[in-house]
Amino acid sequence: MNAHDHARGQASAYLAQLKDLIRIPSISTDPERKGDIRRAAEWLADDLRRIGFERVEIKPTAGHPVVYAEWLGAGEAAPTVLVYGHYDVQPAEIEAGWTSDPFEPVVRDGKIYARGAADDKGQVFAQVKAAESLLAAGGAPVNLKFLIEGEEEIGSPHLGAWVRANRDLLKADACVISDTSILAIDQPSICYALRGLAYMEVEVFGPKQDLHSGGFGGIVHNPAQALAEMIAQLHHLDGSVAVPGFYDDVLPLSDDERAELMKSAAPEDYWREMTGVPAFWGEAAYALHERIGARPTLEINGMVSGFYGAGSKTVLPARALAKISCRLVANQQPRRIFEQVRDHIARITPPTVRSEVRLIAEGVPARTDLHSRPMQAAIAAYEKGWGKRPLFERGGGTLPVMADIQRELNMPVVLMGFGLRTDGAHGPDEHFHVEMFHKGISTAIHFLELMGT
Amino acid sequence: MNAHDHARGQASAYLAQLKDLIRIPSISTDPERKGDIRRAAEWLADDLRRIGFERVEIKPTAGHPVVYAEWLGAGEAAPTVLVYGHYDVQPAEIEAGWTSDPFEPVVRDGKIYARGAADDKGQVFAQVKAAESLLAAGGAPVNLKFLIEGEEEIGSPHLGAWVRANRDLLKADACVISDTSILAIDQPSICYALRGLAYMEVEVFGPKQDLHSGGFGGIVHNPAQALAEMIAQLHHLDGSVAVPGFYDDVLPLSDDERAELMKSAAPEDYWREMTGVPAFWGEAAYALHERIGARPTLEINGMVSGFYGAGSKTVLPARALAKISCRLVANQQPRRIFEQVRDHIARITPPTVRSEVRLIAEGVPARTDLHSRPMQAAIAAYEKGWGKRPLFERGGGTLPVMADIQRELNMPVVLMGFGLRTDGAHGPDEHFHVEMFHKGISTAIHFLELMGT
Repeated sequence: MNAHDHARGQASAYLAQLKDLIRIPSISTDPERKGDIRRAAEWLADDLRRIGFERVEIKPTAGHPVVYAEWLGAGEAAPTVLVYGHYDVQPAEIEAGWTSDPFEPVVRDGKIYARGAADDKGQVFAQVKAAESLLAAGGAPVNLKFLIEGEEEIGSPHLGAWVRANRDLLKADACVISDTSILAIDQPSICYALRGLAYMEVEVFGPKQDLHSGGFGGIVHNPAQALAEMIAQLHHLDGSVAVPGFYDDVLPLSDDERAELMKSAAPEDYWREMTGVPAFWGEAAYALHERIGARPTLEINGMVSGFYGAGSKTVLPARALAKISCRLVANQQPRRIFEQVRDHIARITPPTVRSEVRLIAEGVPARTDLHSRPMQAAIAAYEKGWGKRPLFERGGGTLPVMADIQRELNMPVVLMGFGLRTDGAHGPDEHFHVEMFHKGISTAIHFLELMGT
Repeated sequence: MNAHDHARGQASAYLAQLKDLIRIPSISTDPERKGDIRRAAEWLADDLRRIGFERVEIKPTAGHPVVYAEWLGAGEAAPTVLVYGHYDVQPAEIEAGWTSDPFEPVVRDGKIYARGAADDKGQVFAQVKAAESLLAAGGAPVNLKFLIEGEEEIGSPHLGAWVRANRDLLKADACVISDTSILAIDQPSICYALRGLAYMEVEVFGPKQDLHSGGFGGIVHNPAQALAEMIAQLHHLDGSVAVPGFYDDVLPLSDDERAELMKSAAPEDYWREMTGVPAFWGEAAYALHERIGARPTLEINGMVSGFYGAGSKTVLPARALAKISCRLVANQQPRRIFEQVRDHIARITPPTVRSEVRLIAEGVPARTDLHSRPMQAAIAAYEKGWGKRPLFERGGGTLPVMADIQRELNMPVVLMGFGLRTDGAHGPDEHFHVEMFHKGISTAIHFLELMGT
């Protein structure tokens, strides 16, 4: 019996096991759930041991533990695939609008309703069951390493350090992450690029203390005004970023890539409905989905100065602050962008005020070459698993774990999502299509088979 | 005996009476002090009756009462002078840094230390004692009306309505207000102009809700950025306000006026020390004291948008708000300025966002003609009272009561201050120079005598 037949035969058993995993409320945001977090890690470790992994360990971190498992039975000559997922979930209370108990999975209309069903227990478990099916059918053609963490929903604060400390252990030829969405239940897609981040804080200092706007207004450069005047110099009128050198390292979109992306692009109406803005904005030379996925941005995430409550207070504020973040695309580097913004801010700071720019957070952009072997394997695997060739997307957000793995382990990363945008991850009535679970297992088996040929 | 001899003879009695008035903690900001507010009003009414005022009433308002008193013994042919002051005070607790009990006046080094000593009990009482001295010496050469309110320290919320409802009662030829400061103990000065105010709120609306800056950044005009870009268009590079028509109604400074103002101007070092800014800003064609006192401004009192706490949050905010106020000079009108700013904001709002401008508060600018009779009388009175001709100043702030009286009663207002900027009004160890109290009485007598000749 081959792995696919095995998976089909075990379909209801695999689903029942997934339900057991889901019943453990492994909520990483809640300190009182530490015991449940541990239970979920142990449940997964037991399952990985049972299905034939040779080495399975619950590895401590400064926070919740990582489940590590490996099967190296394919031999040294065979490639190695690292699978990443997470066993922790967002909080959920039935009062928040759930139709049924969020930690008692129920299948309705072909969907399994429960917290974590899609994000990420259902997806990572599809990978585990793909491995089980291969091992049960005589072994996988590639070596397997699983890294399943327990802190993704709190921002993976300790994963980067743990990965850095375990570089040798995690050595592999490709990494696959199943924690994202595809375009539609009958249309697979691969997100092959995500944006990076350089998050900064700009502070402008004017008078030594708040002043009375009557007693001093007219001789002091108001720091809120000065900050506004500086922010106005961060973009050109055409919507492009005015920071010198900002676009130097941007990998241009090829005509082929643009054509591929166009096939998966949402229509303008979709973006109009999602944003509700009176008119779009941004770089006119690029389509909306390109501006989001393939172009870097500079965004004001917030600003504050002086008095902003109800009524009036005639203050001339002493300082003004803005939170500014740049979304970056390959091959921009967060530190270099920070330095360019910092230097530009210094240049445009008038002599009437003082300014400071501080780097708050950073993440490297990610982009996996569409011609790389893991990507080609993933494309073929989706085609076999879904019966339809996948479309290609670039995401506008940042996935810290993808950046961590790319930076620390230097291997191509494939985002092999089995979810849908409409799954309600993080909200009430989160669900996962049972069909997606089984197609996911099938696709994951194909991927590992293709990687081994 | 003339009035001046009488005042000199009563010097210590007047000071003892002032101490009694100060002992009443008539704190208008504290609802629990309502009884003390009433006691202070009754104390003053009793004193005004005792010294010969014919009609003395405690008039109710929607808040704390007004003390009204009149003496019309000079006859219908004689001019009438309206004196304004306030009997309420700021809060004070000894723990805030007072050397002695703030409501138990103590004279140290020729200064009477107590809450309200300078602001405004000492100053308004000097006016009462000037009237007493004249009446005791046979009568004043002018008719007298006193209006002493109990809500100045909470912004005179009911005075405008009360004045409007009592226009006939308050009819007079001039109003004198003793509630400000002069340049130095040996250098009297008259502030003959104050700025008005148009306080607005500008709100910019972008997407229908806060968005993820990764998922949407690049196609939406960030409202914080749009607001900043609009604020940057409110001033020209030379520091002047870019709102069309803004300066249309500004009464230009004459050469004479500029020369007079220069005599009282503080040196640049004073402003440098007070503000601590690295360099001054504003209309280069005007000296610093002119920019504050004789030129209108447009100031950002505050702004807020999105996230501004510690750390990072990658939000693309749905809206941004700024508090904007214009300080106005004669003959600008707050409503007209509001309309000009509103229309300018509408013009510079890009099609990618929506904006709203709301008027929050307004106050008319005040300016008393230096050649008017009350002003000439005040100049001569200071010269006699202090032995030195006063200098002239324009203030940058707004005195709502001056605007109320000018607008509702249409008479010249003279600010006849007896305080000093260093008196510590509103702070701990507020004090009033005993010498200023007596010189104030003398100056006030001279003023009334000169108004009657």
